[in-house]
Amino acid sequence: MNVNTEQLFTQARTQNGYFADPVPETTLRELWDLMKWGPTSANCSPARIVFVSSDAAKRTLIDCMNAGNVDKVRQAPVTAVIGMDMAFYEQLPKLFPHTNARPWFADKPELIASTAFRNSSLQGGYFIVAARALGLDCGPMSGFDAAKMDAAFWGGTTVKTNFVCALGRGDPSKVFARSPRLGFDEACRIA
Amino acid sequence: MNVNTEQLFTQARTQNGYFADPVPETTLRELWDLMKWGPTSANCSPARIVFVSSDAAKRTLIDCMNAGNVDKVRQAPVTAVIGMDMAFYEQLPKLFPHTNARPWFADKPELIASTAFRNSSLQGGYFIVAARALGLDCGPMSGFDAAKMDAAFWGGTTVKTNFVCALGRGDPSKVFARSPRLGFDEACRIA
Repeated sequence: MNVNTEQLFTQARTQNGYFADPVPETTLRELWDLMKWGPTSANCSPARIVFVSSDAAKRTLIDCMNAGNVDKVRQAPVTAVIGMDMAFYEQLPKLFPHTNARPWFADKPELIASTAFRNSSLQGGYFIVAARALGLDCGPMSGFDAAKMDAAFWGGTTVKTNFVCALGRGDPSKVFARSPRLGFDEACRIA
Repeated sequence: MNVNTEQLFTQARTQNGYFADPVPETTLRELWDLMKWGPTSANCSPARIVFVSSDAAKRTLIDCMNAGNVDKVRQAPVTAVIGMDMAFYEQLPKLFPHTNARPWFADKPELIASTAFRNSSLQGGYFIVAARALGLDCGPMSGFDAAKMDAAFWGGTTVKTNFVCALGRGDPSKVFARSPRLGFDEACRIA
């Protein structure tokens, strides 16, 4: 599928308001079928997603969000709760079949935590770029009550919330002036 | 710039060997100038990068890598050490100029740590997709001695290593058979 780096990076903007246009389930499935191919350590693929779209689920989600994010979730046709499975290593016999990688992680809580967090966040980056490739606008957010979110969306599982991202057609009148970025020489060096 | 989702996601593969073709500095600058636009929480942009390309820096990096990653770093014309600035909030007056966001983080070590790790990993996802958009193959790695790496590449700074990614033209004969991914219904649900 043809896309351009303007829509993915240089012209894309974080959204604060959304039009009502629905996001079809087929688009959410296409989104997963792009982002799932992004690389993760030992193909561990810890990200799990709840796409919140029903009125009932949206009310539950709104109840977990910080005040400044409530209107965004209310307006967006879909908001994705992106979690990380802290038992991701149980999937390695399937996901990394050429060797027995489960013992690399099992019973190593610090390595499990850092691997789940790093790789589900990497997958969060793939999620945002893949959504934009599909023509969706994104509004990533980390202002919420994590314990409440975990209980509401991942109860009885080994998944914990990483961050949240609204999806839809953004309202350009609600976009803020673009903030500056660090230049290459401020953030990078060649050694 | 026109690209396609095959080169970014569905056909892109993690590399294990590289041809000698150099990666020009202009391409590394283009890479930063794409990835820097990806969204981060409060535009905090914690990622910092050392692009290792000289023989001396490569020897230092090889000395930090786990045995299984040494040949990859030796072959790749450039390997990026992607770090996270644990004092990222000191840049917020510049990066998030419309409000005083520094106090949201200062003296909150757990929030600093999770924000730096989540957002520099998100930026790692943008890095990989942006590199592929520029025609570079990627080999992300997390098998290294982190303390040694921090001392070697970020000594005297507030930056810690997150992960490492080789860049170059990959040798297709060294690519492994593709591992499976979780299906939508294994990793996602619609609520």
